[in-house]
Amino acid sequence: MEPLSKNTIKLITSLTRKKERDELNLFFAEGPKLVDDLLNTFSCSLLVATSDYIDSHKSIRADIVKEVSKEDLKKASALCAPQSVVAVFRKPNYQLDCANIANQLTLMLDTIQDPGNLGTIIRVADWFGIENILCSKETVDVYNPKVVQATMGALSRVKIHYLDLEETLIKMKNVPIFGTFLEGNNIYEEALPPTGVIIMGNEGNGISSGVGKYVNRKLYIPNFPQSRDTSESLNVAIATAITCSEFRRRINK
Amino acid sequence: MEPLSKNTIKLITSLTRKKERDELNLFFAEGPKLVDDLLNTFSCSLLVATSDYIDSHKSIRADIVKEVSKEDLKKASALCAPQSVVAVFRKPNYQLDCANIANQLTLMLDTIQDPGNLGTIIRVADWFGIENILCSKETVDVYNPKVVQATMGALSRVKIHYLDLEETLIKMKNVPIFGTFLEGNNIYEEALPPTGVIIMGNEGNGISSGVGKYVNRKLYIPNFPQSRDTSESLNVAIATAITCSEFRRRINK
Repeated sequence: MEPLSKNTIKLITSLTRKKERDELNLFFAEGPKLVDDLLNTFSCSLLVATSDYIDSHKSIRADIVKEVSKEDLKKASALCAPQSVVAVFRKPNYQLDCANIANQLTLMLDTIQDPGNLGTIIRVADWFGIENILCSKETVDVYNPKVVQATMGALSRVKIHYLDLEETLIKMKNVPIFGTFLEGNNIYEEALPPTGVIIMGNEGNGISSGVGKYVNRKLYIPNFPQSRDTSESLNVAIATAITCSEFRRRINK
Repeated sequence: MEPLSKNTIKLITSLTRKKERDELNLFFAEGPKLVDDLLNTFSCSLLVATSDYIDSHKSIRADIVKEVSKEDLKKASALCAPQSVVAVFRKPNYQLDCANIANQLTLMLDTIQDPGNLGTIIRVADWFGIENILCSKETVDVYNPKVVQATMGALSRVKIHYLDLEETLIKMKNVPIFGTFLEGNNIYEEALPPTGVIIMGNEGNGISSGVGKYVNRKLYIPNFPQSRDTSESLNVAIATAITCSEFRRRINK
């Protein structure tokens, strides 16, 4: 077993920064469960692992595997408790099929900033069978290691696109566009279709006015009892989950 | 303006540790919005703030206020970006009224370990009008600063109790006890009552077997489409939110 080279450590740790991820078109993930999920979908260019992991993954191409000691794995890891494998993947290049979007339920994220929130939202989308998430360019990078880890593998089943939301919305004629607003209709009582776009807004500022003008169906998640003084808002990942649950409930019988 | 004394800094920073919080019966919170919310409910024993905060809070008792410079506030803060005020509160001493619990919807947490998850669950409980949360003694401490900050003030409206869950459950005769299990009934189709106990399990292990045997109504949040390969589970705060939303939907019309 050769020691892990300084250049390899440098490559992996450089991928904690967006600039390097964009330039190299790479990202990394850690831990056997997450890496196994991502190996199903993404092209792996380097897999740094201890003998435990390698012995239980005989089918992985030998030319990308680098067996290391636990001490060396630590040097390549961004986690407090490294877990047997760190893998570098090529970023996918998804093409957005707008005609297809109109026939599905799709999430649109208007500048989600917290990595944990984005990761949790991707997991929610996966649970509720949402194939595509359209993110504003200001939304936190999905290949940020904190987001990748928080998706718990859901990243391998949900396609994330970064684009100009207003340019995308203007092309969506006759598509129901949903957003949650204080003056929206009670989500529990609304007829919700199986297809459409659900917009979720920024943690502090909600849906921006430029994007909000395309919303043609305003919804509201009522608190309980409605007269009571309560938190001002729900966390955005929580609101996304309740909203998606309501859409799927209508057809999940 | 006197400089902040070393002893005061030492007191506040010692409250990042559970041992000291328990011994002194104190906890701390930061930021004007959160502190304002907590001042409504908890007894404040020390408020370290910049002149900005003090000038806009004339009614706060002068004997507990310590005006400091921004530099000194940083020394007392556990946050990367300190926000005008750090306040020390006495921990409340709630009495649990079991008869009352039977007439309400109550959450029970079986060893939630992540501070962010507990904070988010308290916020969800507040939104859905749940007054009491019963936590196993192994659940993360609610006065952990990460939990306090994540509650966004909901901590001032929801009572958190730590107790032996099995001892509590054995006393709850004729109370519907709900839990989510893979073999549970579709939550969207179940008749859900306005009162009862909802048990949420640990992030990795779910509901423990000792607690699980008291569950008399098993529920399941279906993924979509149900045949599809998806994430193995939802995050516990997300599952709590969807479950509480379903209970409140039945009576929120």
